Formats: sequence, C-alpha cells, structure tokens
Amino acid sequence: MDGSRVVVVLPAGGCSMRMNTDTPKQYMTILNRPLLSYTIEAFERISWVEQIIVVTAKEQIEFVNKEILPKYGHSKTCITEGGTTRHHSIYNGVKHIASVFVGKPDIVVVHDAVRPFVDEHLLGELVSEAKRHGASAAIRPLVSTVIAVNKEGFLDESLERSKYRASETPQTFQYDIIKSAYEKCSDYDFEFGTECLHLALQYTGTSAKLVEGSSDLWKVTYKKDFYAAEGILKERSTSVRLLYKNEESIACTVHSALEAAGIKTNKEIISNNDISTMTHNCLVLVHDVNTAMDTIKQLHNTEGQRVTANCGSIIIHVLQIAATSERFSLHRKFQNLMRECSRETRDTCVNGVLFEGSSMEDKMCAIIQNLIRDRNIVFTGQVFLVGEI
Amino acid sequence: MDGSRVVVVLPAGGCSMRMNTDTPKQYMTILNRPLLSYTIEAFERISWVEQIIVVTAKEQIEFVNKEILPKYGHSKTCITEGGTTRHHSIYNGVKHIASVFVGKPDIVVVHDAVRPFVDEHLLGELVSEAKRHGASAAIRPLVSTVIAVNKEGFLDESLERSKYRASETPQTFQYDIIKSAYEKCSDYDFEFGTECLHLALQYTGTSAKLVEGSSDLWKVTYKKDFYAAEGILKERSTSVRLLYKNEESIACTVHSALEAAGIKTNKEIISNNDISTMTHNCLVLVHDVNTAMDTIKQLHNTEGQRVTANCGSIIIHVLQIAATSERFSLHRKFQNLMRECSRETRDTCVNGVLFEGSSMEDKMCAIIQNLIRDRNIVFTGQVFLVGEI
Repeated sequence: MDGSRVVVVLPAGGCSMRMNTDTPKQYMTILNRPLLSYTIEAFERISWVEQIIVVTAKEQIEFVNKEILPKYGHSKTCITEGGTTRHHSIYNGVKHIASVFVGKPDIVVVHDAVRPFVDEHLLGELVSEAKRHGASAAIRPLVSTVIAVNKEGFLDESLERSKYRASETPQTFQYDIIKSAYEKCSDYDFEFGTECLHLALQYTGTSAKLVEGSSDLWKVTYKKDFYAAEGILKERSTSVRLLYKNEESIACTVHSALEAAGIKTNKEIISNNDISTMTHNCLVLVHDVNTAMDTIKQLHNTEGQRVTANCGSIIIHVLQIAATSERFSLHRKFQNLMRECSRETRDTCVNGVLFEGSSMEDKMCAIIQNLIRDRNIVFTGQVFLVGEI
Repeated sequence: MDGSRVVVVLPAGGCSMRMNTDTPKQYMTILNRPLLSYTIEAFERISWVEQIIVVTAKEQIEFVNKEILPKYGHSKTCITEGGTTRHHSIYNGVKHIASVFVGKPDIVVVHDAVRPFVDEHLLGELVSEAKRHGASAAIRPLVSTVIAVNKEGFLDESLERSKYRASETPQTFQYDIIKSAYEKCSDYDFEFGTECLHLALQYTGTSAKLVEGSSDLWKVTYKKDFYAAEGILKERSTSVRLLYKNEESIACTVHSALEAAGIKTNKEIISNNDISTMTHNCLVLVHDVNTAMDTIKQLHNTEGQRVTANCGSIIIHVLQIAATSERFSLHRKFQNLMRECSRETRDTCVNGVLFEGSSMEDKMCAIIQNLIRDRNIVFTGQVFLVGEI
C-alpha cells in the first residue's frame, strides 16, 4: 500500500424489505455470527485500514455496541447514527470522521454492511486510484443483458453489454472530495440519488477510475443471496487443524480426504501443550483407544479448558474401535463424554465419530467433511457411528 | 391459460467456465438430483406445456437420456444436439420441434437449464402476451446501478435505473417469428448475439412485451448462485407428513415447531395401510415405546418395504424413552434398526431421534428441523440423542 490513511464508512441501516424477514439482513447470522460482523472483520484484517465507522439506525446502536463489536473482537470499529436514506447515512459517517479520527484521512472507503467479501488487493488498488484521480470504484461485468423499456412496456433496445458495467462497492474517495460533494448536493440527491460516484462527478467534477473486481462483490439483497453468502462463508472460513498421537495412518486418510475436498488442513502430531490457542476454526483429533478418554477430558475441562475456540468453530473427536463386545460400553462412555464436552464449549460444536472396520474409512471421511462444512451447533454433543457399532 | 399449444426449448450446453468446477453446473446435484432435472420438472408440472426439448452437447446426450430423463420421470421431455453457441443451440431446438411435435406449436418458450424456478402464472402471462404481440419476456429491476465506462476506464455516466431492466428468461415467441428470425440472422448474430429478443426485433420487427417477474428468475452463474439455488430448493421442496399413533402431544409439539419454522406439515394418525405411497418428501413418525420397533420393521421391510420414497427424501423416526436403565438396550436396538433401514432405502435418508425428558422438546424439534432441511444422505442411519441417554 502507498501509505494513505484510510477510513471506512459502512452504512448498515437497511431494513431488508426485499428479504421478507423480520431481522434486517445485516444482523442475520451465518455460523452463529451476524453478517455485519463478517464485513467488519474483512476490513479489520487489513492492517492499513485505520478506522471503520458503522452507520446504523438509532435503535440498533446499543445492540451493535454491546452484542457485536466486543463479542467478535472488532477493535478498530466505532458506530454512529444513520439518517433516513443511504446518502444521509453515508454523510453522517463522513461527518463523524472528524470526531474519531486523529488527523485527517486521505481516503474514505464507502462500502455496504451486506457485502461480506472484501479483498485486500482490490481495496489497495481502489485506494491508489482514488489518491491519483480523486475517486475510484469496483465494477463487474453485467450478468444479464440490460434493456431499455418504452412507456408502453415494450422492448426499446438492448444495450451493448461491453460498454456497460454493474457498479459495486467498495468505492473510494479523497476525503475532501466526498465531503465537498455531500456539502453541495441537493435534498433531492439525498432522497433519490443512488450513487456516491455520481455525486462526486456532478458536484466536484471527479470522474471515478473504475476497477474490475471478482465475482464476490455482490450485495446480499434477497433470501437467495443470504444462502449464497452462507455457502461461500462456510467454504472460505474453513481451515482445519488435524491432530493425532499414534494413529498416523487414519490421520493420513482423513487428511487426504479433506484436502481432496478442497478443505485446507494442517496435520500435526499432538503434543501436551500446544492446543491452548486455536488459529483454525476446525479441530479434528484422531485418537487411539488407549488414550482417547484421558486426552479428551484433559483437553476440554480437567485442566481448565485448554481448547479455546472461536465462535462458529467445531471440534471433532475421531476414534476407531474394534468389533469386540467392549465396543458397546466404549460407545456409551464416548457418548457421555461428548455430551459433557459440548456443555463446556458453548459456542463451539463438539462431535464424535466412532468407526469400526477399515473399509469404512470413506464413509467416516464423508461424515467428518460434512460436519466441518456445516458446523451446525444444533448437532453439538452427537456421536456419529460408522460400521457395526 | 388461453389454449395455446406450447413447447419449451431448453439449452443446456454450457460448460460452466465461470463456476470453476469440472461438472457443468446444469448437472451439479442438489439433494441428490441434478439442477437440470429441477428445471425440467418446473415445466413438466405445468399441464399446458406439451413438450420440452433439451438441447445439449453431443457427448452429454446419452447421459441425459439414460441417467436423468427416466430416473426423475420426465415424460414430456426429449433431447437434441446443440451447437457451438447459445443461438446455434436454440435454433437446433427450434428446428427439432418439427420432428417431435404433432402439428405446429403456437408458442415457443426459450429458457435456461440453469434457472430452476419457473412460475406457472408468469409463464401463462408471457404466453398470452406473445400470442398477442409476437414475443414477450421476463424482466427484473436492476440490482446494481449500471454505468457506462469510457475508453480510459473512467465513469462516463450512470444510467437512470428506472428506465432500464435486466433481461431474464423465460422468453416466449410465436413459432413462426422465432423460426423466421433464426432463418434470417447472420453468422455474426449466431456467434456474438446475446438475446433472442434482439433478433426478433431486428429480423421480424417484433418488439417484445416485457413482464416483470419475481426475484426467483436469476441464472445460476457462479458458485455462489449454486449455493443460493441449493438453499431455496431445500426450503421450497420441503413438505412434511407427520404421523403418530399414541403420542399425540409430542406430535403436536413437533407440528407447531415445524410450522413456526415455515415448514408445511400435515399431521395425521398413523393407520395400518396408508403409508404405501408418499406425496411428501419428508416423513416424520412419532412412535411410542411399546410399538416403535414393530412399526418401524413393518414399515421398512418385513412387509415388502411399504415406504416408497422419492429421491432426496428423508424419514425420521422419533421416540421418547424414560430415564430407566432399559434405555441403553433400547438405544442399541433402535440404532441397529436405523442402520438396517438406511440400507434398505438407498436414496432416502433415514434417521432416528431418541429423546428423554420433556424439557428437551425444544432441542428435539431443532434437530428434526435441521435434519429435514439438510436431508443429508451422508448422515443416513444415524440416531440423534437428546437428553441423558
């Protein structure tokens, strides 16, 4: 990055009329976490973003301040009250900069709370272009042909797709330009204007440099988009730490299966002290019969809960058992232990997978893979059986 | 409907370059069934659609003919070979009409294999408008602002959103109009033209009547769209038949919980003879301890497998047990039975839910609800425990 001082204004005031849900979509949860928090996190991760200003309705300020910002560790983010339209809200965010930002920012990034995918490289490019040209914005090719409709509702013309683009966010502006555009614009603009880009052009003569982004830039608008975001976030956010002690061959099988399914997995031998923090959101432990119960007990609570897991994480304990009569009591013990563990780790899903018979490895791996992808807290404490147990 | 004779041309030749997957997206499966089959089914359900012509690449014809059409009971559908572009394929489909259709159709519907949501009411309107005006098409408001980009990559202008629409499908044409438009159009059109609407306008002077459709009209283009389709199809296709014998209060609790979650549920007393066919794709049976095992055995195989379930269905057996020592052996028996049942019913998911303690009903309902939504065949045969079992 070019050393610009960057602040983000994130309007989050929508009421989701197009979604047909009671909860505004920015507060709907995916893997136990509100969509807004994913968007904030995408900016917090970028080291050169100094401040994120969330702009939201008055009645939601307390909720965001108490339930979202501290819970998900958003330390660079503050909140201010929005207005009645998107432009009023963005302008409130821009005005708020002076009271929270030390000095003056070079660049203001305008984005949406319901666009959880922000790429650092693209944002860097948009910041550089805004520094050079005054404003810049992300665009995408059109998915559908755009057509002009005449007054009677008939086709007038199809636009030549190659000349047009869909306007997306992030959009970036020099601080003075966006401030000046809003100071000059009319009540009509505040009420009906859709694009900051357009205001910058009209009131400051700044023509934004347009930069093509990836297919991730879409906005969660309809219910279908929420499902889409859920699918992508589950896929993206998955990184597995796979630990084993003696059962290396099983660990290798699981490792290969997860990697083949496109799930990033680190395989390591378990040691006594190294599970105390967790940088991955999926922990898979391959146990052996002799040490399983003790290891699990130690891990989960006896020694003061050594597993610290993020919200939306999963811990899966895998154990192969032999087809002897002992397997029934072993199953019972394992089941009870999983139930206890799941009570200890409230926001984290804990599951067991017990399998018997080496021909069952494919099925065992498929179950692990599905558990990891879904991380469904409703199923916490359950043990999944493979083979004749 | 107005008595028009209607045939559908369904190009399904795409190779999904934008999806980054090996399988073309029309063949990717949701709930164990290819996307293409959902789209075909949407038209097959409409009584006045006489024929559906799928146009696909030569090397896929056998697969569709053998693996899709018979398996999912598509009786009004046939297949023909596509061309190198979308327009070549549609034209091949139009030309194929003469060899499969008795008489001459009034209206040809052009759609996409990767748009699985087709509304009968909207299609009826599009057919009527085409009969009156020659051509008609579904449109949607623009989600993003559309902007013109100048040669240097800067913002030229933002289009006034209200004048423009996204062009979607279905599109409907009088048979003679679409046939004539393709007969007249140039090689350039076949190669680079994007819209049938545009060809009809240019070569036959037919200006299509545009009809606004619902937000379901989008096209599965990117990976995210696939997740979106998956979410919507799971939500839509769920209809539950809830059967009970003696445990009416539990059945009522489950019924209320499912309805509250927006899942359409029919509750009925189980009788001896009425489960032989299945019009719902989720069957939830609430058992009592005395008759559970016998009922389940009868149902699944002893009497020649009375449950006939559609592909992608789920059967959930629910049983409340008391906190006595007998619960362990009961759990074991139930578990073994579920495993056996799941082997009998291959494409259908079979799960058990055992619960102890009446304070556990919320959790029990949440598990049932999640099982119904996911219908994950990987978890078939598993028993989910609620309470101290």
